[in-house]
This record gives sequence, structure tokens and C-alpha cells, in this order.
Amino acid sequence: MEKILMKGNEAISEAAIQAGCKYFFGYPITPQNEIPAYMSKHMPKAGGTYLQAESEVAAINMVYGAAGSGARVMTSSSSPGISLKQEGISYIAGAQLPCVIVNIQRSGPGLGGILPSQADYFQAVKGGGHGDYQLFVYAPATVQEAVSLTMEAFDVADMYRMPVMILGDGILGQMMEPVDFTPPKKRELPEKDWATTGNDGSRDNNVINSLYIQAGPLYQRTLDLYAKYEEIKKNETRYGLYNTENAEIILTAYGSSARICKSVIDSLKEEGIEVGMIRPITVWPFPYDIYDEYASMDHIKRFLTVEMSMGQMIEDVKLGVNGKKPVEFFGRTGGKVPTVKEIKEKVMEMIQEVRA
Amino acid sequence: MEKILMKGNEAISEAAIQAGCKYFFGYPITPQNEIPAYMSKHMPKAGGTYLQAESEVAAINMVYGAAGSGARVMTSSSSPGISLKQEGISYIAGAQLPCVIVNIQRSGPGLGGILPSQADYFQAVKGGGHGDYQLFVYAPATVQEAVSLTMEAFDVADMYRMPVMILGDGILGQMMEPVDFTPPKKRELPEKDWATTGNDGSRDNNVINSLYIQAGPLYQRTLDLYAKYEEIKKNETRYGLYNTENAEIILTAYGSSARICKSVIDSLKEEGIEVGMIRPITVWPFPYDIYDEYASMDHIKRFLTVEMSMGQMIEDVKLGVNGKKPVEFFGRTGGKVPTVKEIKEKVMEMIQEVRA
Amino acid sequence: MEKILMKGNEAISEAAIQAGCKYFFGYPITPQNEIPAYMSKHMPKAGGTYLQAESEVAAINMVYGAAGSGARVMTSSSSPGISLKQEGISYIAGAQLPCVIVNIQRSGPGLGGILPSQADYFQAVKGGGHGDYQLFVYAPATVQEAVSLTMEAFDVADMYRMPVMILGDGILGQMMEPVDFTPPKKRELPEKDWATTGNDGSRDNNVINSLYIQAGPLYQRTLDLYAKYEEIKKNETRYGLYNTENAEIILTAYGSSARICKSVIDSLKEEGIEVGMIRPITVWPFPYDIYDEYASMDHIKRFLTVEMSMGQMIEDVKLGVNGKKPVEFFGRTGGKVPTVKEIKEKVMEMIQEVRA
Amino acid sequence: MEKILMKGNEAISEAAIQAGCKYFFGYPITPQNEIPAYMSKHMPKAGGTYLQAESEVAAINMVYGAAGSGARVMTSSSSPGISLKQEGISYIAGAQLPCVIVNIQRSGPGLGGILPSQADYFQAVKGGGHGDYQLFVYAPATVQEAVSLTMEAFDVADMYRMPVMILGDGILGQMMEPVDFTPPKKRELPEKDWATTGNDGSRDNNVINSLYIQAGPLYQRTLDLYAKYEEIKKNETRYGLYNTENAEIILTAYGSSARICKSVIDSLKEEGIEVGMIRPITVWPFPYDIYDEYASMDHIKRFLTVEMSMGQMIEDVKLGVNGKKPVEFFGRTGGKVPTVKEIKEKVMEMIQEVRA
Repeated sequence: MEKILMKGNEAISEAAIQAGCKYFFGYPITPQNEIPAYMSKHMPKAGGTYLQAESEVAAINMVYGAAGSGARVMTSSSSPGISLKQEGISYIAGAQLPCVIVNIQRSGPGLGGILPSQADYFQAVKGGGHGDYQLFVYAPATVQEAVSLTMEAFDVADMYRMPVMILGDGILGQMMEPVDFTPPKKRELPEKDWATTGNDGSRDNNVINSLYIQAGPLYQRTLDLYAKYEEIKKNETRYGLYNTENAEIILTAYGSSARICKSVIDSLKEEGIEVGMIRPITVWPFPYDIYDEYASMDHIKRFLTVEMSMGQMIEDVKLGVNGKKPVEFFGRTGGKVPTVKEIKEKVMEMIQEVRA
Repeated sequence: MEKILMKGNEAISEAAIQAGCKYFFGYPITPQNEIPAYMSKHMPKAGGTYLQAESEVAAINMVYGAAGSGARVMTSSSSPGISLKQEGISYIAGAQLPCVIVNIQRSGPGLGGILPSQADYFQAVKGGGHGDYQLFVYAPATVQEAVSLTMEAFDVADMYRMPVMILGDGILGQMMEPVDFTPPKKRELPEKDWATTGNDGSRDNNVINSLYIQAGPLYQRTLDLYAKYEEIKKNETRYGLYNTENAEIILTAYGSSARICKSVIDSLKEEGIEVGMIRPITVWPFPYDIYDEYASMDHIKRFLTVEMSMGQMIEDVKLGVNGKKPVEFFGRTGGKVPTVKEIKEKVMEMIQEVRA
Repeated sequence: MEKILMKGNEAISEAAIQAGCKYFFGYPITPQNEIPAYMSKHMPKAGGTYLQAESEVAAINMVYGAAGSGARVMTSSSSPGISLKQEGISYIAGAQLPCVIVNIQRSGPGLGGILPSQADYFQAVKGGGHGDYQLFVYAPATVQEAVSLTMEAFDVADMYRMPVMILGDGILGQMMEPVDFTPPKKRELPEKDWATTGNDGSRDNNVINSLYIQAGPLYQRTLDLYAKYEEIKKNETRYGLYNTENAEIILTAYGSSARICKSVIDSLKEEGIEVGMIRPITVWPFPYDIYDEYASMDHIKRFLTVEMSMGQMIEDVKLGVNGKKPVEFFGRTGGKVPTVKEIKEKVMEMIQEVRA
Repeated sequence: MEKILMKGNEAISEAAIQAGCKYFFGYPITPQNEIPAYMSKHMPKAGGTYLQAESEVAAINMVYGAAGSGARVMTSSSSPGISLKQEGISYIAGAQLPCVIVNIQRSGPGLGGILPSQADYFQAVKGGGHGDYQLFVYAPATVQEAVSLTMEAFDVADMYRMPVMILGDGILGQMMEPVDFTPPKKRELPEKDWATTGNDGSRDNNVINSLYIQAGPLYQRTLDLYAKYEEIKKNETRYGLYNTENAEIILTAYGSSARICKSVIDSLKEEGIEVGMIRPITVWPFPYDIYDEYASMDHIKRFLTVEMSMGQMIEDVKLGVNGKKPVEFFGRTGGKVPTVKEIKEKVMEMIQEVRA
């Protein structure tokens, strides 16, 4: 398939359209505005609907409505806008509806700045909203991966009836790379017999709801939800390994940070130093097992988590490593991006300590 | 000081007024409605202002405004309402403003039910909003503790210029217990020379803001924030220990769940079985060190985290224990409350495995 | 064309679809809920979009957006909801955009009641919003007329680039009558070369705006608007006459009230008393001239305005009659509908005075 | 009493505070921003509350709430903001609550411009909201009159339990003139025994409501409302006369336009031409009777209505004159202010026709 050069935000948009997304509801915020711009132009041509809502709160509730009717629907925003959507996201998760939510992270907290960040990791994977629920979260590191995972996100959402987040950042959103739109491997998707598509009287009414008057049914709903989550952990956890065979130190990073870590590893390799990387592609479900596995290897001495935050994914890394090896942190935040040089220095310090 | 019998929600309200709270902005939701009801009645008498806003989003932004003027201000809500406030909370944290936020948790996700729950733990301590920030979170287990911690919350908020959450649940909110309103130990509080109280020209303007155009200052602001958080971890971390000296198993629970665990421990003690409890009083800062300390003791074989959720605080417990001992989970959620009998059975299973 | 039996609200909806309406934005309120219900079901089949907005304010601004793109768009509501739309309506009028707004009046002020009313006449014709502008307002008296005028409304809106209101009431909306959907007489409609449909660079950008920095251009815009209004008054003013030739008294009423007045006239005719009716079909432009004409006839002694209000259209009637004959009022409001018997009694009193 | 030099907007604000206004809810819009600015600064000092709401819709509903508790409350805005408040205004009128609403008109429709205008006359006096109701509307022409009428507005509101509007414009709001704050003549005001101030059980609950399930009570409420309006028309109608004794032509204008007309009259008098003015001070109740009286005088040949609009008050003038004399119009709008020269030319044309 021919490759074309596209900006991350536009590539995500086109991927959504090709995946059959028919509704897009949003509200503008930098650095994701290319997504609504692209959608407003191309959705009508694809027989879909683009609508700029009154606010992020309105937008996520429109997603709720459209998802309830069984349509493929997406919203996108950046950090503060995603915070405004937390109530709606919890409702969609509770009502077990499929949708795709894109967060092109900017730096926070508050209005923060429009520069890239990875400081919404906790919000994405620990549940920014209330109650027991999970988002499925893909963390693409390249524009091509953003395309593939966005397409797959719609399938995963439909398969498990849950909201799927694409967790990107301003670098990924603004960067241009060549991409193709090869569709993901075909999955057997369940029929949407739960959707509220109108009832001609031949069946009982479908009801989309997240309200429970009694504790029993709500507890059962939650158990069902978590049984599904267990199944997902088994089937959908995804990560990448890079130069891990002989590594003394395992770097770990996702998204744009992983690109930088790759350069660090290549650069150190030229100097004869073996450092590897575990790169979570799904940050929920998080690939705890691979950390446990590598933590148990003798040649691995330490782990270094690299994030554009003050340290968030490091908690999941520690939970995976579970005390078997030390886990250290290197981060830049507030719009600062960690440099290859800085990370190399940090790694070299660790190497020296380890070898001492 | 004389004790009076009060409902948790009303006691929290009265404690706020006695602590000098002058503004309350909210929006109704069960099971915390006694708080706005009490405030609407008593705030005007205390020379304060009660206002029901258009929505939770409006309410938290009014808190932002009032906090910026240096006034003591509070909002309260329950789970879905707290989700709606996430953007505002992140702004307040980013702008480094003091305020008190009460979450009387109901069961979720979505509308869920009005029965009690502890499923907003992640939201409270991992940052439900976007960006690098923390809430200070108290988790009272009795109405008296709710009173004392609410009063202290206003001092802590002013001392560190940050939002403080009272993380309660429907049981605590609805339960009646005798309380007194002894003020907390007097702290040396900094002057609010940053507040926007009007400027007669004798100084530069004070500006309340969370927007940064450049990465450098935003990074520095975030480093300052986290330096403050380190200081708080050192000075303000609080927990309770119960019957831990000879315990084989350490239960761990906060809030209403800790009350039930206490009954479990007492009941097992009568049967000659020694089980103890670590009860976090601050869930952020989380008392990781005490877990590390107990995990290192030989007589402690295992940990059991008890929550009204599908398992959230357990991650912090594991991070504290760091692989030194197994950490297990017992939970009920969706409005179900774990019973003494159920927990005892679970503990007895663990005891048998440990002794085997 | 075959006639089918339909409820007024549904007939208006179907008429809109047949007239090429492609977007419907609304928010529920009794007694017009059959309109959004019908639209939600039938719009998608017609290749259109139905969307329930966050509020009436959001809905009218979505109408503004869709109208700006040149699409045929409609909203409907009932009295309180129409009040919420006043800012948006003024914007649409100022930006000279075509759209159709249905008001199925309920009784007010405030929440009032869900029973029928004609108390929004002033709001509809004198400009409920701010600034110098007019709505074009049709006041249908039968379901068939509602159908025909709704279809025509889209043409009129496009022809003059202005919002057109269908001013109905709960009786008209809920009543079933046989209707056909014969399209209106074909008009030569101008091309929508002003619409913001995307610009491939081959022309200047189209801009939809109601903001003017300088007084000159805003004054000119307003003069243009009122030049257009003069043209409309000349070409589009419409009314019905009933039994006016030998009448001593002229009744005047619009919408449902006109149906009752017709019964009054028929009943009095059987008793040998000649009473006629002028029925405005467009309440803006108001048919002032026909009142002037009849007020100048010797056999006409008095006018009686019948409204489901405390007296609103009577001002326009008086402006038309201009002192030439007395104008009296009979009204019921608050959900009360004037009865044939009541009106006959009022007319008989007038007859006796006139003949005395 | 000593006079001080104040801007119209600030003088209105200070008058409100001196009249005992304790709550101000608003949302910013030019050209009335000096009012919220003044209120935010001075309200707290006066033991009152200033709050900037989420929107105009929120602000008017807060006014509704505060008015229901019996407090003196005010909001202010400019044209588009007043349109957004129409639903709330209708609710307040329906619930028979006292409050003061300031409209410092800008030019419309739509966003229009920030320059002065009188194009919201219809909205103010014919009911911009839905249903049968009236606002009491004062139209001050000087800053001193704005002060006096604002103070009186709070009394009138309390006396008749209805919303009172101060209808100003950008000229009045921005102009500086010397004012004193002499309180209005003391009125015997009824006790607010209907207010929802909390109930200790010694009386039935007070209920503030505008919803009626049945037509009967709603009709009766409306009849009561209009009986009150009749009483007001009798007691509160106010106007000014200027040089009317020997006038051939009667100019009529309110607010800023009346100031210009006064210059026209003075200038013509110097040239020996006698022209007078009727200046409505209350535009609702409108002083119809004085127009009827003057229209019946032989020396009066014609009326000329001067407005900063395309012609709105002229309808009320015509209703007063009722065909006895011709009524002509001179207007400028869109931010254009009619000049003395322009109006003189128009008057001279009329004089020539009349004398011909």
C-alpha cells in the first residue's frame, strides 16, 4: 500500500474515517485542532456528521448518545478538555458502550501550556472519572502506529463494548511521517443487538443506562465489567522490546519518549554499552508480566522509566518489577522534552553504580 | 468540650464554618445533600455566602475565584459531580490555591447508585484531572475524625496553598456520632500576600493564573510544586495502627472499611488470632514507609487490603510493601458493603495458607 | 394527492423533511416533543442529522452554524425554550441566515403550564431578542396549513435570508387532521454563494458574522435589512377573510383562536347576525392595510380581537384600524381556551351597543 | 446634598448599593462593564455579595434565587446578554419576585457593536420573554435621573413584586455628570412574608414557583398580575413635558435621544419656531393618556418620534395618538447617533408641510 506523508493529528482523523467512524463531537483546544478541522471537512464527504458542541461536557454526552445507538463515534481533545469529559467517560464505561477518545496531551496542570506532555498517564489508566472502571488505552509512538491503533481502537471498542483512548502528545500530533492505511487484522465482532436503534415492536426495548437503584445488580454489572477486563488483559496486552537481550539496564517509555529512548540506546550501543527498552503499546492493560520476566533476569540490573511527567508510569513499572530490581526515574515536564544527551548521562550514572 | 450528636455530613459542614469557611459553592447530588442544606442555612448567619451554581463545573470555577481572593472556601459533591470538577481542580492545583473539596462517594461508574463506595480512590490520589499535580487527601473513619480533619484541612490548604480533599463515603456522611469541635493545633500560617484582594497601587498586581506560554517557567512551577509535595510527605503523612504488634496478617483499609476491619480484628482476637491493621488517614501523602517497615517484620506474613471497590488502594499498598510480602485483596463494590463475616473467612483462609 | 391523518407536530416535522430540511437541533419540552421524536426517527432515513443539544442555547447556536453552511435547518421548542433562544435568534437575523423555528406555545409566563396559549405573540413579532430585526412569522390555523406554511417557510427563509417562525400552539400541535404534502408553488431561489462550505482558493472566503466594529457598516447592514423587510411586507403579507361582506362586527384572530371564531360566526349567522373575520396568516408582516380598508367601511362598526392571551395582537389591530373604529378585546389565557359561547355573548353585547 | 461627578454606570451601581442591594450577579459585556467592576469592589464592603456567574443564563437564575429569599438583588448586562436572560426574566415575572435589571443597550442585532443604541425598546416593553407579563421599565435621560430611578426601582420592585428594568444606553453609561444620592420619597412597602427565608415550623412553607399544572390557577395568577399592572399604570406612569404649550410639532423621545431633542427644541426656539417634547420616563407603563391629550389640541399638528432604532417606540406613540394626528419617525441606529442638525432639518420639513 502506498505511503503518504501526513501530520499525526490528520492521520488519526483519516484512520478514524477509514475505520467507519460516522460521528465526531468536539470542542477546540490546541494542540489537537487539526483533528476537528480535518473531521469538519471530511466527515460530511464520508456520510458522517461533524459537530462542534457547546463545550467538552456537551461533546462527551453526544458521544454517549451516538455510541448508544451503535454508531462508530469519536471525540478528541487535549488535557483540560479531557478532564471536563471525565463524568461522561465514566458514564460511557458504566453503560458499556464503545467509542474512541483521543487525548493529544499538552502540559498541565491547569491551562498549563500547549507544548507536549505525558502527564495525563494517571488520568488515562487509573480512571480520571469516578467508580470502578477502566479505559482501554493505546499509546502510539509513531504516526504509522497512531493510524494502525486508531483503526484497531474502533474494533476493540466494539469487541469489548468499552471506551478506547488514543493517548498521544503534541509531538505525535504535530509531526509528519509517511503512513499507509492498511486495515487491521479482521476481528469477529459481535452484533450490536443492544443498540437503541428504534424498536418496531418485534423485540423488547433496549435501554442504555448507568443508573442502578439496588446494590445487587450494580455489583453484578461491575463484576461483569472486571471479568471482561481480565479477558482483555489476557488477549490484548501489547508492548515492544528493543535491544533487550544483553542489556544491563532496561529503559522503559511510551509514545514520544520511547522515540527518544531508542536514540539513546542506539547511541550507547555505538559506544559498546548495552541498554534495552520495554515500550508499552497498551498502557492499559499494562504489560506487567514482561517486567516481571525481565526483572528476574540476571543480566538486567536496573530499570529506568523515562517520561514527560514528574513520574507516573513508574508506579506501574514498579508494580511489575515488584521489588526484584531497583526502578529509577528520569523526567522532564511542563513542555520540556528530555534530550538524548540528558538521558544518556543518567544511564551512564546508573551503569557506573551498577558496575561499581 | 461538650459532645453533640451529629450526622457526618452536617458535622463536616459545621466544622468548615468553625474553621472560618466563608464561601460554599455547590450543586445537589445524593448522598451529600445535607452539606449544601446545612451550608445554605448556616453560612449567612456566619457572615458567609452559600450559592448553588448552575452546574458542578460552574461551582468549582467559583471556588477557583474565591480561593484566588484568599477566602476560605469549600465545595462538596459526590462521585459524578467530582468528575465534573476535574478540570477546575487541576486549575486550582496549578494556580496553587487553597480550598477544601468534599467527596462523599457513591457507587459508580456512571450514575451508579446512591449507596456508599470507595471506588474514587484512584481519582482522588492519582489525579483525576490532567497534568502533574496532587491533592492532599484526608480519609476520615469516624464523624469525629471527619470534624477534626475538615478543620485541619483549611489550615493545611492555606499552609501549602493547595486543594485538600475530604474523601468520605455515604456511610460516613449519613451516620450519626457524638462529636466536639475542638480546633486543631494552631499552625503558623503564611500571610496570603498573593491574593487578589484589590490593589490600591502600593504594590504590584497579584495575578492568579495557570497558563504558561513558555516551557521553562511551567517546568519551574512544576518543580516547585513537587518540592512542596516532598515537604508535605515528610511532615503530614498520617496513619493509625491497631493491634499490629503480634499480628500474622496486616489488614489495611481506610474510612468506613477500616471500621469494619476493626470489628474483624476484635472478633478474631477473641478467638486467639492476632491480626492487625494499618489505616491510612492521609491517603495522599500515602504512608508507604510504614508498610515497608511492617513488611520487613518476620511475624508479618501477609497483607490484606479491604476496600469498597474492585481494588484501588491495593496498588499503593503493594508499592509500599514492594514485593517483601504477598498483598491480597478483599472487596465489595457497587453499593455492597463487606461484612465482618466475609472478611473473617478471607482472613482465616490466609491464616491457614500461611501456617500450612 | 392522497390525504393522511396526522398530528400537527408530526405533520410539521414531515413537511420540514419533505422541504429538504437536513438538520434538526433541539431540546425537549412539552407540548412539542412529537417534533424531535419524529425528527430523531426520520431525519437519518432522509440523509439528515438529528441532534439533541445540551440546552436550548446550544441548539440555536447549532442552527446558526448549520444555517451558515447553507443547509436547510430547523429547531423547535415551546415558550420557555424559545425565550432561551432569543440571543441566538438575534444573531441569526443579524447575520442574515435562513432557518425555520417552530414555537408550539404553552402557557406562561415562567414554567407556566403545558396547556395551549397565544401569549408569545409579542415575542414573535416585536423581536424577543435585542436590536433592530424581524422574524418572518406564519400562524397556521389547521394542520394542513401548518404543513403548507412549514414547506413554504424554508423557501421564504432562503429567498430573504432570514429566520422564519411557525407560531403554533398546543392545540394545533396535538390535533389530528387529514393532510397532503403538496409542495408550495416553486419560487426562484437565489444561489447560496454566501455560505461557508469550504473554500478551495478559487474565491474569497465567505464570512458569517454579526459583529461590527464601526457604526457605519452596521447602520448600512440594518438599512439593508429593513429595505428587505419592506419588500417582504409588499410581497408576502397574507390573511384570510371570512363572511366579511355584510358584517357589522369584524372578529380578528389567528391560529387556534381563529378556528373558534369561525364557529362563532357560523353560529351567529344561523341566528341572522352577520359577523366577519380577518385572520392574519402572516403575523409578521402584519396585514395592517386590510384593517385600514375594513375600518373605512360604513357597515363595519367595531372590531373584536380574540386571543389566548391578555391582549397582544390587539396592538397591531389598533395600529391598522388607527382610531377609525373601536377595537375591543376578548381573551382567555393560562391554558384556558375561549369558548364559542363566551365569545358569542361578548359579540352580542357589542351588537346591542352598536345598534343602540 | 453635595454633588459628585460620576460616570453613569458607576452612578447606577452606587445608587443600587445605597438602595440596599445586597446581591449582584452578572457576566461581562461592553458597554456596561463598569457596573460589575464597581460592584465587585464595593459590594463586599457593603456586606453584600458580588458574583460573576458562568453565563448570563446562570446569572439571571441566581437573581431568581436571591429574589425568592427576599433580598434586594440586581443584575446588569447589555443587549445580547439581556436576550440570554429572557427565560429567567419571564420566570421571575411569573413568580412575582422583585429585582432590578439594568440594560445598557449596545447596537444590534447579533453581536452588533458596542456603540449606543435604543433598539431593545420592544424587548423591554413588549416582553422579550414568553407569556403574559410586563416589566416595569424606567428610561433615564441623565446620570442624576439614572441614580434616582435606580434607587426608586428597588422600592417599586418590592412594592409590586415584579422585575424593574433600567433601560439605558452606552451614552448614559459612559457619560460623566454631577449627581447626588438623595433617597427617593419613602414608600410604605409591604412585608416580604412570601420570602423563602427558612421555616422554623411556625408557619406554612413559602413556595416560589412559576409552574402550574392546571389552567384555572394559572389563569387566576395571570388575572392577578394584570390587575396589579392596571394599578401600576394608574399610579406610576411618569413623563416629562418640555416647551409644549405653543408647540406646532411634538417631538417624543426617551433617554439619550431626549437630550438631543432638547437641544433641537432650544435651537429652534431661538429661530422662533415652537416645538415641544413629551419624554416618557416610564416606557412601561407608557404614558398613552398624555399623547391622547396633546393629540386632541388644535395647535399640535404632528408628532415626531426620535429613536436610536429603526422605529420601535413609535408604535406606542401611535397607540396613544390613535389616529388623531400624523406620527412621523426619525431614527439612526447601528451605533449612529442622530444629530441636532439632522433632526432640525426633519422638523423644518414637517413645519413647512404643516403650514403649507
